[in-house]
Amino acid sequence: MNAVAVPESDIPLNRLSLPETIWWQDGDLFLLDQTQLPLTVVGERQDTIEQVFASIKALKVRGAPAIGVAGAYGLLVGIREQQGLPLPEFLAHIESAADMLGEARPTAVNLKWGLNRMVQFAKAESAADGGQMYAAMAEEAIRIHEEDRELCRMIGVHGADLIKPGTGVLTHCNAGSLATSEFGTATSPMYVAHQDGVPFRVYADETRPLLQGARLTSWELQKAGIDVSLLTDNMAAHIMSQGLIDVVIVGTDRVAANGDVANKIGTLGVAILARHFNIPFYVALPYSTIDFDMPAGDGIPIEEREADEVTSFGARRTAPEDVQVRNPAFDVTPAEFVTGLITERGILSPPYSESIAAQYRDQG
Amino acid sequence: MNAVAVPESDIPLNRLSLPETIWWQDGDLFLLDQTQLPLTVVGERQDTIEQVFASIKALKVRGAPAIGVAGAYGLLVGIREQQGLPLPEFLAHIESAADMLGEARPTAVNLKWGLNRMVQFAKAESAADGGQMYAAMAEEAIRIHEEDRELCRMIGVHGADLIKPGTGVLTHCNAGSLATSEFGTATSPMYVAHQDGVPFRVYADETRPLLQGARLTSWELQKAGIDVSLLTDNMAAHIMSQGLIDVVIVGTDRVAANGDVANKIGTLGVAILARHFNIPFYVALPYSTIDFDMPAGDGIPIEEREADEVTSFGARRTAPEDVQVRNPAFDVTPAEFVTGLITERGILSPPYSESIAAQYRDQG
Repeated sequence: MNAVAVPESDIPLNRLSLPETIWWQDGDLFLLDQTQLPLTVVGERQDTIEQVFASIKALKVRGAPAIGVAGAYGLLVGIREQQGLPLPEFLAHIESAADMLGEARPTAVNLKWGLNRMVQFAKAESAADGGQMYAAMAEEAIRIHEEDRELCRMIGVHGADLIKPGTGVLTHCNAGSLATSEFGTATSPMYVAHQDGVPFRVYADETRPLLQGARLTSWELQKAGIDVSLLTDNMAAHIMSQGLIDVVIVGTDRVAANGDVANKIGTLGVAILARHFNIPFYVALPYSTIDFDMPAGDGIPIEEREADEVTSFGARRTAPEDVQVRNPAFDVTPAEFVTGLITERGILSPPYSESIAAQYRDQG
Repeated sequence: MNAVAVPESDIPLNRLSLPETIWWQDGDLFLLDQTQLPLTVVGERQDTIEQVFASIKALKVRGAPAIGVAGAYGLLVGIREQQGLPLPEFLAHIESAADMLGEARPTAVNLKWGLNRMVQFAKAESAADGGQMYAAMAEEAIRIHEEDRELCRMIGVHGADLIKPGTGVLTHCNAGSLATSEFGTATSPMYVAHQDGVPFRVYADETRPLLQGARLTSWELQKAGIDVSLLTDNMAAHIMSQGLIDVVIVGTDRVAANGDVANKIGTLGVAILARHFNIPFYVALPYSTIDFDMPAGDGIPIEEREADEVTSFGARRTAPEDVQVRNPAFDVTPAEFVTGLITERGILSPPYSESIAAQYRDQG
C-alpha cells in the first residue's frame, strides 16, 4: 500500500509560519517527510503503527521532542482498530504496541517518555470501554503536543538573552522547529531573539552523514528570515579561530542525571573546540529529554546506523565498494564541557546533578 | 576540443601497484582524473597549459607535492610549441607561462616551488637553442618527479616507527599516493609499515566538502591491502574518546618557517581534539612544502572555494537555494599543536623555527 502524500499547500503552518512537523487531523496522524527537505516539502499520512515505526526509523520524523510527540500519536494509530476489545485486552494491546514502537530509535529518551506517558495515562484512566479510553488517550496525545509547543517556546524565552546584537551563534544538527513542536530547542532562543528584532548571525554545521544542518536547520532559519550561513562540520574550528562564534547552542537526545549530554555525532568535537576557544557551550532541552534514571552518559546506548549513510549520497556512491565504515549516530559530551542547560524553567548551571535534581524534584 | 581519455588498463602502475597520478609519456603529460574516483579510474591527456590550469583548479590533480610535479610538467606543455623562438623570447615565454600556471591554486606552496625550480633551471641552463633548452627542461621535470618519489619514500622510512602492531592511525584528507608520487606523505609511514608486515588500522576522515578521504584515501589504502575504516569528519572526537586512535598523521599544503601548518580544512579541529585526548599529532611533508619566506601561518592565503561544493552533492542539491555558505579550503594549525614534522630527513621536533632552520640551512 502506498502512503498518502500531502502536498505543501495542504500542510498546516505553525506560529513561525513554518510547515508543521507533525499534525493530527480528523483522527489521522500526518508527518512532514523530512528526508525530502529542502528540495520537496511533502507530508505523509501514517496509516499503521508499522508505518509510524518505519517513518521514525527512516528519520522522516526526527529530533528528540518530535519523536516523543510522534510516538504518542503513533500509539493511537496502533490501537484505534482495537477499541472494541474488552478493556483489559485493550490495555494489554496498548502496552505491547508501545513496547514495539519504542524500539524504533534507541538513543533519544523522548520516544519512550512519550509512549510511557500514554501507557501510564491509560492505566490510570477510568474509562467505561475502549472507545472512551481511546478518546481520552487522543486528548492526552494532543496535550503532549501542545505542552511541547509551550516548553519549546519557554526555552527560547529563557535562552534569548544569550543572543545580543551582533552575536555569532554556532549550532549543530537540527534541534529546530522541525525537530520539535514549533520553536525548537536549540533554535528557540534564536526565534525569540529574532522576534525581538535582535540582529545576529547563525552558523549551521551541515552535520554529516545525513546533513540535517544543510537540509533542515539552514532551511527553516532561512525561511524564518534569520541570517544563516552553512558550514561543513570540519570548518567549525577555523570559524571559531576567526572570532566569529560567540556562543554554541545545540539540542540533545538525552541528558543523564549528572548533566552528560548525548546528541548528534559531532557534538562532542564542537564542545571540545568551544572549550579551547573559550566559547560558551549551551544545550537546550525540555525536561522530557532528561533521563533521571541514567546516572551518567557512559550508560546511554549509542545507535550505530547503516554504512550506506556514509558511503553514498542519494543514489551516488562516494566511497569504494566494501570499505569498512563507522557510523555512530550520537556521541556523549561530558557535563564538564556544558556551560549551561537551557530548559523551559530557566538556565541550569553546574554542578548539574544538583541543579537538575533541585529543579526537577517533581519529575524525577 | 574534448580531452583524450585513458582507460584504467592503459594507466601505468607505481611500485605500490596503484595507478600513477601523473605520468609523462612520449612528450605528453597525463593526469589521473581524481574527481572521478572511486567510481571510475580514468586518465586524461593534457594538451594545453590552459587544460593543465583547469585540471589543477578543478582538483583533477591535487595534493601539494603532486601539483608541484604537475606544474613542472604542465609548464613543458605550455612551452613546447615555442621551441623555435630565439632563446631570450623563449625564456620570457617560459616565465610568463609559469606565472600563469602558478595562479591555479593559491595555498599550496609546491606549485610555485615546482614552477620556480623550472624557471631557475632554464635561466641557469646554457642551451644552444630552444630545442636544447626544452629537452633539458624535460629532463629536469622528470628529475623533480623522481625526487618526489624518493622524498615520499624517505618520509615513510622515518615515520614508520610511529606505527606499531595494533596502532590506530587517524588521517584527514588525502596526503596519499594520489596526492604525491607513489608513497604519499601522510600515508608513507603507513605504506612502509605495511610493507614491513606491521598490522595496524587506519581511520580516514571523509573530509568534506570534496570527500578526499572517502573517495581517495580509503580507496588507495584499501587497494594496497591496509585495514582502513571510513569516518565522517565529525566522528573523530567520539572515536578518539573510545581510545581507538594512537597517533594522527596528516599532510600539509604549506609549512611556515615557524612550523605553523596550513592543510585541508578540518585539520585544525583534529589537532585541537588530539591535544585534548593526549594523542600525538604529526605532519608529514617533503622540504618543498616548507615556505622559508613565510614567517608564520597567519600570512598564508586561504583559498575560499565555490559555494556549490558545500550545497550540492554530485548533481543533487542538498541545501536550500541561495543559502549563504562559507567554504574555506584550508585552515592553519599553530605549531604548538604539532608533535613532530615527519620529513625526508627525519622527524623534526619543536621549536620548529630552530629545527627547520637547522635541518634546511642548505635550502632556505
